[in-house]
Amino acid sequence: MAVYTEVSDEELRVFVAGYGIGEVLSFKGIAEGVENSNYFLATEAGTFILTLYEKRVSEGDLPFFLGLMAHLSARGVACPLPVRDRAGRELGRLAGRPAALITFLDGLAVRRPSAGHCRAVGGVLARLHQAASDFPLTRPNALSLPGWAPLLAAAGPGADQVAPGLGERCRVELATLARDWPSDLPAGVIHADLFTDNVFFIGPALSGVIDFYFACNDFFAYDLAICLNAWCFEHDGSFNVTKGRAMIAGYEAERALAPQEIEALPILARGAALRFLLTRLVDWLNVPPGALVKPKDPLEYDRKLGFHRRVASAADYGWEPR
Amino acid sequence: MAVYTEVSDEELRVFVAGYGIGEVLSFKGIAEGVENSNYFLATEAGTFILTLYEKRVSEGDLPFFLGLMAHLSARGVACPLPVRDRAGRELGRLAGRPAALITFLDGLAVRRPSAGHCRAVGGVLARLHQAASDFPLTRPNALSLPGWAPLLAAAGPGADQVAPGLGERCRVELATLARDWPSDLPAGVIHADLFTDNVFFIGPALSGVIDFYFACNDFFAYDLAICLNAWCFEHDGSFNVTKGRAMIAGYEAERALAPQEIEALPILARGAALRFLLTRLVDWLNVPPGALVKPKDPLEYDRKLGFHRRVASAADYGWEPR
Repeated sequence: MAVYTEVSDEELRVFVAGYGIGEVLSFKGIAEGVENSNYFLATEAGTFILTLYEKRVSEGDLPFFLGLMAHLSARGVACPLPVRDRAGRELGRLAGRPAALITFLDGLAVRRPSAGHCRAVGGVLARLHQAASDFPLTRPNALSLPGWAPLLAAAGPGADQVAPGLGERCRVELATLARDWPSDLPAGVIHADLFTDNVFFIGPALSGVIDFYFACNDFFAYDLAICLNAWCFEHDGSFNVTKGRAMIAGYEAERALAPQEIEALPILARGAALRFLLTRLVDWLNVPPGALVKPKDPLEYDRKLGFHRRVASAADYGWEPR
Repeated sequence: MAVYTEVSDEELRVFVAGYGIGEVLSFKGIAEGVENSNYFLATEAGTFILTLYEKRVSEGDLPFFLGLMAHLSARGVACPLPVRDRAGRELGRLAGRPAALITFLDGLAVRRPSAGHCRAVGGVLARLHQAASDFPLTRPNALSLPGWAPLLAAAGPGADQVAPGLGERCRVELATLARDWPSDLPAGVIHADLFTDNVFFIGPALSGVIDFYFACNDFFAYDLAICLNAWCFEHDGSFNVTKGRAMIAGYEAERALAPQEIEALPILARGAALRFLLTRLVDWLNVPPGALVKPKDPLEYDRKLGFHRRVASAADYGWEPR
């Protein structure tokens, strides 16, 4: 939960006057979003989210993120649409921060997704991959294989304080991934953070996807591997192959996986698990005093990694020949 | 900013189904409110605030607070209206907490109120006092004179760590107030916490009053004294008599102050300042580790108290014979 930057009513009025959206009717800080400050904004023209980008988001990346949302939205992928100001700009400045106004997306995040939710997520992920195929900007994935060793180094001996042997497990895993990581798979723009928080549903129907602030260029199947990690494990740590099957089938209904993607799925799932293990570990070890955000448990991904190590093939995730 | 209790989408659906307000369209934690967890809720029937009452609010007081809002709303004082569930109850239970659904009130809190805002606040305060005159429930003010000595005792030697001599200043002030506090002024239900956060405006027009969780029975003029403290000092600590004059005139346009209320205004203003000084001091000295809320500066009210000590009469607050 987070509002890191306070916005006065006077600053807000000046900012909103730069858009053709009428007078402000309501403005409330939202207790979600780890990286940025988010506000609910209602005006005479409708409801919006106002985001102030905090230090962890690089300002140079914002045209990529905002442009991607506009691109996807124009191609029918339901996601927030950046609103242009009177001068045609998607990116503004407010309270000393880069700021953007985006349309409000109805829907609710699910905490315990069903197989139906997983199928819908697989489908929207594939549509996102396809809709972004002609997006002109690129952004390298700073949190792919080359980024993991520095994260492990940053955790240092702290890893073993979180769980005995965790540092060594990560080092061994990293060596395996460095050896076996694929180098040539279908790639393009991926969401890279499509957790349950970031997909909204109204009743059983998927209403949209939010939070594109980790989007980047990488393997499509790696994005699917992230989603298998995020959606298809039960809260007791077990992998639910019914949900995995639904998610992969939902994906393949929109975009068929190539044979080499299917073959690579287990190693990609291991990489995805290690990626979230490591970023969570570093966050866990660096909670600032007075932090507004409770860090997420890195060991959840240590346990998922244990599952992936025992996987023989994509069939163990529910993949089936079509 | 605060969401102390998390609500899952499943719990929410069950709860909302108990009201005749259609399906949930959106649900977001709001980063405001120190005492309770507040959520923005949109359904097919409209927009609402869902409040979960946390430990600092006594469950036995909730019928008073919710009943008061319904009473005031019915008499034209713009404030949130508790929504009754299908069984006619204003108070429900969600995620292990007492919970209420109230209508969403448009408007924006002002950070730097103008004299016009102060006049409007004076007016709504008087209308609130009058509209509540036939409200059948009562709630003693736990934070009036008899409650202040225990607060000072709770702060203990910590007071002098916040500012040298603060403990002694409070003791002397408390003795003066115990001697001079009025015992017989017009009284009834007061808001008791009508700070700038709790009054909304759309453009220059007051759109409503929120947060009745300190409302209680006490002197009407004490409520006005709280507002003079909260609204009529500049950020540099100086009292703005133009704003005071506007607020008192706004109040008296709706309800004339009796001579003994006018005479008591300076001592009531001192009491109000000490009350917020002491509760802020105790909060300041007891910030729990990992607190989500930044405590408010008690010394702001130490400085205001210094002003009130030099006041000769209500005229110094801007009161004028009518």
